Amino acid sequence: DGHPPELGDLAGQLAFLAEADRLKSVSRASILLDGSRRENSAEHSWHLALYALVLGGLAAPGVDVGRVIRMLLIHDLVEIDVGDVPLHSAGGQAHGSEAVRAAEAAAARRLFGLLPEAQGAGLLALWQEFEAVETPDAIFAKALDRCQPAVQNLRGGGAGWVEYDVTLPQIEARVEPWVAAGSPALWDWLQAGLRAHFAAA
Amino acid sequence: DGHPPELGDLAGQLAFLAEADRLKSVSRASILLDGSRRENSAEHSWHLALYALVLGGLAAPGVDVGRVIRMLLIHDLVEIDVGDVPLHSAGGQAHGSEAVRAAEAAAARRLFGLLPEAQGAGLLALWQEFEAVETPDAIFAKALDRCQPAVQNLRGGGAGWVEYDVTLPQIEARVEPWVAAGSPALWDWLQAGLRAHFAAA
Ligand SMILES: [Ca+2]
Repeated sequence: DGHPPELGDLAGQLAFLAEADRLKSVSRASILLDGSRRENSAEHSWHLALYALVLGGLAAPGVDVGRVIRMLLIHDLVEIDVGDVPLHSAGGQAHGSEAVRAAEAAAARRLFGLLPEAQGAGLLALWQEFEAVETPDAIFAKALDRCQPAVQNLRGGGAGWVEYDVTLPQIEARVEPWVAAGSPALWDWLQAGLRAHFAAA
Repeated sequence: DGHPPELGDLAGQLAFLAEADRLKSVSRASILLDGSRRENSAEHSWHLALYALVLGGLAAPGVDVGRVIRMLLIHDLVEIDVGDVPLHSAGGQAHGSEAVRAAEAAAARRLFGLLPEAQGAGLLALWQEFEAVETPDAIFAKALDRCQPAVQNLRGGGAGWVEYDVTLPQIEARVEPWVAAGSPALWDWLQAGLRAHFAAA
């Protein structure tokens, strides 16, 4: 119809997908299992989505695992603007602080604002739902998000915990409420591993 | 019931998820948009799943976008054993060769075999469906898998094509059948970009 394709919805969608590429350059505290380097937030998001795909059977009845996967695919995009704030940094006080949450909310508006309006609003709402951790889908997604770094740390010999000088009670305080709420079975497994690790450390 | 948790399904699932971590160390030909380094297959898989999430509206009627996302999350896991075989390497002859396909099939059996039997069989079948590119879900997934590297190359100024000394007709031959089959609109957009790029190059 004479409109160049870049004027349609597709242009905004591809601009969003190009901007998302930057999440591959956001470095996290977690270290790959082979010890070679830190994990970035894009591959972390993939790993978490795979966790949901594989462990979806542990979710409470009524959880929509497909929706959880979508939530996890987008949950860290705000780090493109804000960076990753490690759970155990600043004595556990930085993660989830008012200032960080406000910056993340602004980042979400900017990023999802690149999309066609209705689609951007839908994904912004999905991200806000994840952050609020009130719905069954968000509670399960958050459980996986808190579980995966601990599992990585356990399998990697606990190097991340040494770096941040974290104790077992601190990990339990920062991880158990979220993981146990989303999947008691997963917390039982993780807690057994944590106790064995710290007993041997 | 007295069984240590590592004897249940969860042990196999977490072993699979730990093995999946290695996909973060599989390097691809594509370069990040900021030019800083090559993309790895884990973050590529995340990006593709996000493509499906965002561009799902372009899929043919009846395509289950949630299923496409699952397919894309697992589609490259075989590269843990086989590595990534770039589309344009060896004059376009290596990708999809008999030898590569046989090695990938063996890798899929090994990797999905780490999971509880029924779950592993289900994901193996999903991967095989992706590889066969016959169902509507697989056709759309493959379209995105062929489209994303070309979009990355376009936005990155075509460095990947220079490296492999690829011409526009070669790219069209290796990309168009797959992208156009999954989404004619996406191919129209991509082809316009490709033509403009090579006309200016
Ligand atoms: Ca691929």
